[in-house]
Amino acid sequence: MNTNHIHNYRATIAYDGTAYAGWQIQPNGLAVQEVIERSLAHLNGAPVKLHGSGRTDRGVHARAQSANFTLGRRWIPVDLQRALNAVLPSDIRILKLTGTRTDFHARRSAVAKEYRYLIWNDEIMPPHLRLYRAHVRRPLDVAAMQLAAARLIGCHDFAAFSANPNRPVESTVRTLARLLVRRRGHDITIVARGNGFLYKMVRSLAGLLIRVGSGEVAPAKVKDILATRIRTAVVPTAPPQGLFLWQVFYRG
Amino acid sequence: MNTNHIHNYRATIAYDGTAYAGWQIQPNGLAVQEVIERSLAHLNGAPVKLHGSGRTDRGVHARAQSANFTLGRRWIPVDLQRALNAVLPSDIRILKLTGTRTDFHARRSAVAKEYRYLIWNDEIMPPHLRLYRAHVRRPLDVAAMQLAAARLIGCHDFAAFSANPNRPVESTVRTLARLLVRRRGHDITIVARGNGFLYKMVRSLAGLLIRVGSGEVAPAKVKDILATRIRTAVVPTAPPQGLFLWQVFYRG
Repeated sequence: MNTNHIHNYRATIAYDGTAYAGWQIQPNGLAVQEVIERSLAHLNGAPVKLHGSGRTDRGVHARAQSANFTLGRRWIPVDLQRALNAVLPSDIRILKLTGTRTDFHARRSAVAKEYRYLIWNDEIMPPHLRLYRAHVRRPLDVAAMQLAAARLIGCHDFAAFSANPNRPVESTVRTLARLLVRRRGHDITIVARGNGFLYKMVRSLAGLLIRVGSGEVAPAKVKDILATRIRTAVVPTAPPQGLFLWQVFYRG
Repeated sequence: MNTNHIHNYRATIAYDGTAYAGWQIQPNGLAVQEVIERSLAHLNGAPVKLHGSGRTDRGVHARAQSANFTLGRRWIPVDLQRALNAVLPSDIRILKLTGTRTDFHARRSAVAKEYRYLIWNDEIMPPHLRLYRAHVRRPLDVAAMQLAAARLIGCHDFAAFSANPNRPVESTVRTLARLLVRRRGHDITIVARGNGFLYKMVRSLAGLLIRVGSGEVAPAKVKDILATRIRTAVVPTAPPQGLFLWQVFYRG
């Protein structure tokens, strides 16, 4: 594919995060990245480094994570995809696999990401949804959540929505292009799209919006919370099983 | 509720069958019935016998199983329901609980049952559906499945669709009031409704319909298979995770 015989592949990956310690390899438990790298190494006969578009936390799901990796030999992408899916556990699936230009990098080339936070808003959580929804029993006021969400859209310093960073970040300014709340029956979906997200930012936004929907925080109060630029107990982190990395966007 | 101080309660129960050895208590693994009886005994301070509308096999789910049980003291049904859901694991939920007449029996009073068999018909099974769908990769011909299904509706001897009974049955004649096949995107649903079902009958019907949809068995052949009244390898048993006990019907 190029003169250095470096063949770059781009994968779209879905996973059920229930059993994993998150996307990124780390000492406390098995990571999704680790499982896929092992499968790739098995097929490649040598270690392979997988570059994800970003991390997802322990228990968070992906509808469509993006990643890239390079191999020393050329594969027919659909053959490689089938071979990978044949060795991967059923809670991780390669939905799409293509050869890509050498300079494509799943994290650096990404221009935007969409996360969705799914809430089951009813007294009883159906057993078949329990691993894929946050459960909120008290009826949520979606109109109030929408008012609050509208106030968070745009370019802001989101430091008040970043939890225990443990990593120095150069800036906590991000642009939220979209923050929507919608209800369909007992399902409430929060759609968050932006150019980048701080650590636990989506779960923090969801946590505050749930408090707004419960009547604990007024929609107008959200601007003040944003302005503090300090994380306080007023913003809880919503549980991981409601969160899905929904889509990663690239130019072209 | 009556002079003998026997209070009869009727429960609608949903469960994720993934972790269970089926509905009915048996030596090889934990049964759903067992878990609920333990929770009831815990609340009641004495053993309680739970009568289900019928068994479901290992790994089979229920959207709405029906069961009844009697207690020596009177509970406010909604309090009992909440107390039960608080002690039950999250893969079993009491969706509804009401006091009922003393002669109500979940199995003997049932007049019909509906099962649904759910198939994901695409190359790749999404991780979040893997526990709740049968996976069929080859494209299924739903029109052929519908033709075959129509031939199975009505009152027949379904012995050819009963697997390893291990229990003497008086008659293998049953009436299938409804047997529908429908597609929506990659989801194919088989709806089976009738006055009673033989052991593994729905999974056997699904198994044959999948073979018909794959082009391995002609729709017209189904009548001959039914007429043999002997179970043969031509009828496979479809996997348990696609099957849901969907609804149990009672008079009035």
